[in-house]
Amino acid sequence: MKVGIIGLGLIGGSMAIDLKRRGFADEITGVEADSVNAAAAEKIGLVDRVLTLEECVKESDLIVLAVPVGAAVKMLPEILDMFRAEETASGSCRKTVIDVCSTKEQLSKTAHYHPMRTHYVATHPMAGTEYSGPWAAMPGLFDGRACIICNQEESSPAAVHLVEKLYDCLNMRPIYMNASSHDVHTAYVSHISHITSFALALTVLDKEKNEKHIFDLASGGFSSTVRLAKSNADMWVPIFSQNRENLIKVIDTYIEKVRAFRQAIDGFDEDGIRALIEDANRIKRIIR
Amino acid sequence: MKVGIIGLGLIGGSMAIDLKRRGFADEITGVEADSVNAAAAEKIGLVDRVLTLEECVKESDLIVLAVPVGAAVKMLPEILDMFRAEETASGSCRKTVIDVCSTKEQLSKTAHYHPMRTHYVATHPMAGTEYSGPWAAMPGLFDGRACIICNQEESSPAAVHLVEKLYDCLNMRPIYMNASSHDVHTAYVSHISHITSFALALTVLDKEKNEKHIFDLASGGFSSTVRLAKSNADMWVPIFSQNRENLIKVIDTYIEKVRAFRQAIDGFDEDGIRALIEDANRIKRIIR
Repeated sequence: MKVGIIGLGLIGGSMAIDLKRRGFADEITGVEADSVNAAAAEKIGLVDRVLTLEECVKESDLIVLAVPVGAAVKMLPEILDMFRAEETASGSCRKTVIDVCSTKEQLSKTAHYHPMRTHYVATHPMAGTEYSGPWAAMPGLFDGRACIICNQEESSPAAVHLVEKLYDCLNMRPIYMNASSHDVHTAYVSHISHITSFALALTVLDKEKNEKHIFDLASGGFSSTVRLAKSNADMWVPIFSQNRENLIKVIDTYIEKVRAFRQAIDGFDEDGIRALIEDANRIKRIIR
Repeated sequence: MKVGIIGLGLIGGSMAIDLKRRGFADEITGVEADSVNAAAAEKIGLVDRVLTLEECVKESDLIVLAVPVGAAVKMLPEILDMFRAEETASGSCRKTVIDVCSTKEQLSKTAHYHPMRTHYVATHPMAGTEYSGPWAAMPGLFDGRACIICNQEESSPAAVHLVEKLYDCLNMRPIYMNASSHDVHTAYVSHISHITSFALALTVLDKEKNEKHIFDLASGGFSSTVRLAKSNADMWVPIFSQNRENLIKVIDTYIEKVRAFRQAIDGFDEDGIRALIEDANRIKRIIR
């Protein structure tokens, strides 16, 4: 199996490592628009060769689109067009393309009426770190996590089966959901935690002018809460933008909850503070 | 050296483990108001013996007050009164008491005019986890962290020196600050991150009714951001309450920052979102 990975950052690079080491891919080629990242990915040995998009699509059986979702929305139809051209030229195309983006509805709409739609599988592996670039790639990033597969009825059974094998190789647990539900639920669970973390970093940087104090007073708690504020703008700007409607709703609820704390604290209402904390503690039942 | 630890939870219990193992204390006795926790602390072997408060103060050279700050404010003068009684009865008292609470101003005011004030050292070891109780105690909890020592000019040099030796044994780096600055800075850096995490848990539990979805969609990012929402109400209610004024200011700034994200996202302002994220990314320079 020849795998082509477009975008050799944290996700694409980490996939490249495990898909090669675990024998899913015989050869991995990559495409990387940033020349520094491309050189680094080759030097680190994430991929066997760095190619142009056209060469990569031509040479690969399975293409993984691992670029920020704004770029993915533009590139997905281009790749499906190349599949179409191959089918027209040679009578058949057996290639599959997947994306690994964090929002799904707009990508899904973009591909919906494409004649090669069945060759595309929409996926979202729920794994990552706050770091980015080829040097952030690591083995085992996906192990034991969930991977969402969206609108699989629009993909061919063969393509879905291949993608399930890929994620099984990465030790991921598949979950099936439509693209629109995916975007609602990820806004509620995943995207909001990035907003809260960015806002926390901005607050601390704003209120605490002495950087040494921040370092000294940051116990493990602050570090873990603010961790996501290191996340990359290239990745998160299009996610927030594409998931705007769901995010606005969850941000409004979030502001209400912060205000509830403010009100209880301001009113010396210790019973109220306790009730809020104990209510929040229910998360223990769900998250280890 | 005989050390008495009042409150055998995460902090008191973890101190007991390392102070004994590393040879600072020859004997460690404990006081624990909760009978289940007291039995557990004895069974686990955190302390050599569990005593009453009076017995523990009588037998110890150094007393560590490791109870929630609401209780500490009541107990600190009682312990200093016992020191006073000992001095009156026997002509001298060489005992020292420290607290390890997360707010310092109210404790500091409580002790300020006590005739035995010089025997008290106000400390705040900046370490912890989201778990509580004797079973949460662990070796090495304090290693490499900072410990704030407040208003040390009100303590006797001998008492400060002893406490510096204690924290050196725990591999902590001392930082000196007055109690009022401590409360401002911890509100800005530490306490606010608990509010944001509790509010995140409440939001997710409110918006996402399906607990399985929360589990499935919680990537590492959400888990680390919501981690502090597991924290114990007994500990945090009095902290929020005692640090009310500083916290209200930082919560107001925080709400402004969340609103800035809301406004940029709602207005399709991708440049604005990018500017906020890149501004927040400055935290990378400070926190690993």
